[in-house]
Amino acid sequence: MLNTLGNLLSLTTFGESHGLAYGGIINNFPAGLTVDFDKIQYELDRRKPGQSAIVTQRKESDTVQFLSGIFEGKTTGTPIGFIIENENQKSKDYDHIANSYRPSHADFTYDQKYGLRDYRGGGKSSARETMNWVVAGALAKQFLSNIEINAYVSSVGEIFCEKPYQALDFSKTESNEVRCPDAETAERMIERIKEIKKEGNTIGGTITCVIKNVPVGIGEPVFSKLQAELGKAMLNINAAKGFEYGSGFCGAKMTGKEHNDLFNEDFTTKSNLSGGIQGGISNGMDIYFRVAFKPVATILRPQESVDKYGNPAIVEGKGRHDPCVLPRAVPVVESLAAFALADLFLINKTRNINNF
Amino acid sequence: MLNTLGNLLSLTTFGESHGLAYGGIINNFPAGLTVDFDKIQYELDRRKPGQSAIVTQRKESDTVQFLSGIFEGKTTGTPIGFIIENENQKSKDYDHIANSYRPSHADFTYDQKYGLRDYRGGGKSSARETMNWVVAGALAKQFLSNIEINAYVSSVGEIFCEKPYQALDFSKTESNEVRCPDAETAERMIERIKEIKKEGNTIGGTITCVIKNVPVGIGEPVFSKLQAELGKAMLNINAAKGFEYGSGFCGAKMTGKEHNDLFNEDFTTKSNLSGGIQGGISNGMDIYFRVAFKPVATILRPQESVDKYGNPAIVEGKGRHDPCVLPRAVPVVESLAAFALADLFLINKTRNINNF
Amino acid sequence: MLNTLGNLLSLTTFGESHGLAYGGIINNFPAGLTVDFDKIQYELDRRKPGQSAIVTQRKESDTVQFLSGIFEGKTTGTPIGFIIENENQKSKDYDHIANSYRPSHADFTYDQKYGLRDYRGGGKSSARETMNWVVAGALAKQFLSNIEINAYVSSVGEIFCEKPYQALDFSKTESNEVRCPDAETAERMIERIKEIKKEGNTIGGTITCVIKNVPVGIGEPVFSKLQAELGKAMLNINAAKGFEYGSGFCGAKMTGKEHNDLFNEDFTTKSNLSGGIQGGISNGMDIYFRVAFKPVATILRPQESVDKYGNPAIVEGKGRHDPCVLPRAVPVVESLAAFALADLFLINKTRNINNF
Amino acid sequence: MLNTLGNLLSLTTFGESHGLAYGGIINNFPAGLTVDFDKIQYELDRRKPGQSAIVTQRKESDTVQFLSGIFEGKTTGTPIGFIIENENQKSKDYDHIANSYRPSHADFTYDQKYGLRDYRGGGKSSARETMNWVVAGALAKQFLSNIEINAYVSSVGEIFCEKPYQALDFSKTESNEVRCPDAETAERMIERIKEIKKEGNTIGGTITCVIKNVPVGIGEPVFSKLQAELGKAMLNINAAKGFEYGSGFCGAKMTGKEHNDLFNEDFTTKSNLSGGIQGGISNGMDIYFRVAFKPVATILRPQESVDKYGNPAIVEGKGRHDPCVLPRAVPVVESLAAFALADLFLINKTRNINNF
Repeated sequence: MLNTLGNLLSLTTFGESHGLAYGGIINNFPAGLTVDFDKIQYELDRRKPGQSAIVTQRKESDTVQFLSGIFEGKTTGTPIGFIIENENQKSKDYDHIANSYRPSHADFTYDQKYGLRDYRGGGKSSARETMNWVVAGALAKQFLSNIEINAYVSSVGEIFCEKPYQALDFSKTESNEVRCPDAETAERMIERIKEIKKEGNTIGGTITCVIKNVPVGIGEPVFSKLQAELGKAMLNINAAKGFEYGSGFCGAKMTGKEHNDLFNEDFTTKSNLSGGIQGGISNGMDIYFRVAFKPVATILRPQESVDKYGNPAIVEGKGRHDPCVLPRAVPVVESLAAFALADLFLINKTRNINNF
Repeated sequence: MLNTLGNLLSLTTFGESHGLAYGGIINNFPAGLTVDFDKIQYELDRRKPGQSAIVTQRKESDTVQFLSGIFEGKTTGTPIGFIIENENQKSKDYDHIANSYRPSHADFTYDQKYGLRDYRGGGKSSARETMNWVVAGALAKQFLSNIEINAYVSSVGEIFCEKPYQALDFSKTESNEVRCPDAETAERMIERIKEIKKEGNTIGGTITCVIKNVPVGIGEPVFSKLQAELGKAMLNINAAKGFEYGSGFCGAKMTGKEHNDLFNEDFTTKSNLSGGIQGGISNGMDIYFRVAFKPVATILRPQESVDKYGNPAIVEGKGRHDPCVLPRAVPVVESLAAFALADLFLINKTRNINNF
Repeated sequence: MLNTLGNLLSLTTFGESHGLAYGGIINNFPAGLTVDFDKIQYELDRRKPGQSAIVTQRKESDTVQFLSGIFEGKTTGTPIGFIIENENQKSKDYDHIANSYRPSHADFTYDQKYGLRDYRGGGKSSARETMNWVVAGALAKQFLSNIEINAYVSSVGEIFCEKPYQALDFSKTESNEVRCPDAETAERMIERIKEIKKEGNTIGGTITCVIKNVPVGIGEPVFSKLQAELGKAMLNINAAKGFEYGSGFCGAKMTGKEHNDLFNEDFTTKSNLSGGIQGGISNGMDIYFRVAFKPVATILRPQESVDKYGNPAIVEGKGRHDPCVLPRAVPVVESLAAFALADLFLINKTRNINNF
Repeated sequence: MLNTLGNLLSLTTFGESHGLAYGGIINNFPAGLTVDFDKIQYELDRRKPGQSAIVTQRKESDTVQFLSGIFEGKTTGTPIGFIIENENQKSKDYDHIANSYRPSHADFTYDQKYGLRDYRGGGKSSARETMNWVVAGALAKQFLSNIEINAYVSSVGEIFCEKPYQALDFSKTESNEVRCPDAETAERMIERIKEIKKEGNTIGGTITCVIKNVPVGIGEPVFSKLQAELGKAMLNINAAKGFEYGSGFCGAKMTGKEHNDLFNEDFTTKSNLSGGIQGGISNGMDIYFRVAFKPVATILRPQESVDKYGNPAIVEGKGRHDPCVLPRAVPVVESLAAFALADLFLINKTRNINNF
């Protein structure tokens, strides 16, 4: 379904950067879950601006309000509606953006497609939309309580976390501002981001996500393969430029003899280059994937551009922008993974007549 | 919709490797297109086995038969049904696969998920399914007649086509067996595949796809961004391990200053690291993306594995398998790209009240 | 898509009778429509409680607030989010309903299905949900500005408006409390409702809806026939028990010779027993259909019932309930018709390659 | 999803009256069902032409061939593809229909919508499409093995089966040609149809369907209410003009006091005017509904009509047509009911976290 995430468990959302509110509707969430609201707000707080020195200093409380579908603290099985109000949506003057097209932003494409656009703060194309996804994902995480979903920043620019995920302690991810569980790498990443920020520039990076304890059988055989649903979700993130799972692009350099995952007698595999998925269906091993993020397009330096009539114009980012979006994108990646997984998890319940 | 490709223009498919037939239904294909059946068969022939020395020597004619939705050579706007009969589906003895799990195949996951599986030739998990996609994509290409979609093999193992796509002549793609338009690189790739084949081994690689002349405005703003729909389609290909578009994973190493695409006065951009898409919507520049393929899992050498009871078992691929799936995957990538694009192209027609 | 109205233009909603708010998201509404907010509120006012002596005397302002998708008074093509706050949602004590099952209400089925329910005022099963539909339908009406959609109360209990719709002046529908354009019949209907109200009883009826100026070609050929999409929408209305279009159940008594609509030379038909639809597709003649509504289940008299443990219990409606839901259902029927029609209207834009 | 029946369990179909074949794809049918192929063919035989003196004498064997999704007699959980070949599709000359518009047929609307049409035998608008539905429904019936679905002809023209369904013995439905379980009424119906046939005329009627043993909880709360999904399915049947369930249009004449279904202590109800559904969700009582069918549009008598240019033309049905479609529609109604129910039945499995 167009502009909806999920097939059976679904998320439909709305909101613009400087509109009155963001929000969404979660359909077909199972009844009976006791909602931990603090955990949902915790995930929103991991995403929100102003949380550290290396992210944008904008202030928004990003507080979610549930309007339906939860009664006396439990999900009721009926649509869950929620909103997150925008607090400072009227304060700013966006006239300069109204008529100019910022490089590598969606100003031009929205104008061309729709004939008009809400230009304030990027309008619909703003990554504030990802708040909605975090709310839905935080609920999905609670439903998938036995499944562990851990994302972390695995590179910033040229600085890579060289350790394999198995060597990392995910309980350390939140112990530094950049959300890389390896302390030494994290320090270098933070340093790099501060440098970049000082220059008024921005920088890209990658996030790796590891999902443990997924039961065997999640994913559908043709066009809803587990990796395809995960990939689709990730590629909708505003700055995402790529997705790979298991061996990914490295696997493309290998031979079959090197790449094949041999079985142990308990049906685990000796290696896991497959990334926990075979034929689109989870095989019980860790699922892991990596998402590439381009650098934030808004830089605090003048850039030559054009206005809507094709005349030369100088645009220059002002105010409080992220020099690097990666730290704040970690909960977004986890949330989308949780939601896409929960959808296929529900569907899998109906796979065999013996379940009925 | 589960197991369906597309939102408005949709493809639903069926078929197993050794069942009676493959087939599919294309819904909401516009009426009035004069179908060029030869072009459809041409695309199937690019995908079919036995076409050259570096692919499987199996013989299947892979002939599509249209059963509805086309009348006197023109599409009627009603559902297009088609089938492709399997010709040799009863000839082989698959008892050894029935009880053993081949490494990096979907035997185990299908058995676990469904409680049973059609094990003959991989059954539902076989890449013969991609025939269906080529049929649908070949039709979509005819609908998008002004748009050029060209895929090619951009790497085999460690051998990369180093030239940027702009330096390639796509009319040369079909002039060699591996489908790399750079003759010199193609030769090295073919050599490598022959080597690998001799060893009974297999090898992975990447396919790059370039789409020219896409009008501005294709793609939807939230969960149906153009790159997400393209990525989802590609990640459903059986051996696909990754997808990137525009600058992709390289872009993740860059700074905003380097990465931003500055506008020309005609709204084209000076660079195109964005890969023709901004905010999920085409911007009129070339769309290009890359798909990573793992090496084929079936190797013609004994591998230690397990049977369905967890007992050790030796499995060994026999007969005619692809040492490298890349050459045959080129039309598959183009087909899925065409179909996903055509779907969003149709939807875009309804974007503004002035169109009505 | 589950719990969503529409295929391309879609409405997803949330809300419970005594939750914080109702609301919804409209996806794929075309850009560029100048929204007349007064007209939307006008439709909500036609539906709201307390508007006349023959409907419930509850007081709710039912004011819609648009949160996204509209900018400077125009639709932007992006998701339109809206909410309608519940004003008196905390005031009432519903303990008696919490444990008892009201006859012909959904208390029992919700409890059984989900294991819990929001029992306050019927929770999710309340017809307050129809507010959401009126908002979406009022927007759809503005999009379909050339199409006239007029519903009216065609029967209350045994009192029928005997005149055919062609003999009625729809500008009179709003001139009386019951929304029947025939003044004499309206008077008798109002009398009957007042009588019923005095008894603490309730009464059913039918609504007829007439749609003029629908262009030829709206509707899809297999499972999205125009009458099926209209019927589905209507049968979701809380008290609806039946739907018929054109000759309907009467047509089932006729012969082909009597029933066939002969053509005029301008392709209109001499009769229109088909109700403006042939083969699931509009033929340019008036579309008309009728919806049956059961009497409101809440009566202000004691009824023998059971509690959730199966023990006998007396339930008795208290306070302000509708003796007859028909007058308030008129804008609901129009709204759903407008929305279902607009969805198929959008889709029809993509039917032929000549449109591209 | 457009032109698809079902939300999770789905049916997509293709086929034209004189094309090569009909067929369909059933997605997400649970694995592990041992298919009784004879029962499927039995249902097709109940629908096929030539089965008795009161239906069309055309000869088609209507034999279904399953092409995928069933292995060694069991469903595999993967897409089930099937076809039914048209046997006599080339034999007839349809030039007279090519240019003329038959009254109350879809010739005009298809031509106008799509700009062309397959005119042979009605093409896509032919009721031969319902074969596909019978195949899918026959499988759904086998999945819902504990649920009894019985449809029967409850009226032909003015002849009604006056007994309530509770007084009928459904094992008698197949004992006469018209499929009315009341022998005396059946005889009168058959007489009436023979009379009508002799006149070259046709006649309408109604089918009642009764579903027993549906567990409590089937149906979704907003736009996928059980009655709405049933109604949508029925209103797609080619000649259907109306749908009502429970008290239906009669209920619209009643008061709440008369209409409310009082509970027994085991949560059954004393009456069942609700028709087994409350708030869109099954309550465990019998579900029953009625579908109105218009008389067949093709009559064997000359009718004044127009050609595609608007010139007067005489059209006259020739050959073998149904004087009354009701007897053959009985398995169609049962099939659609089974399929729509099975879809919601699957979905219901995911309603509560305790199921996981």
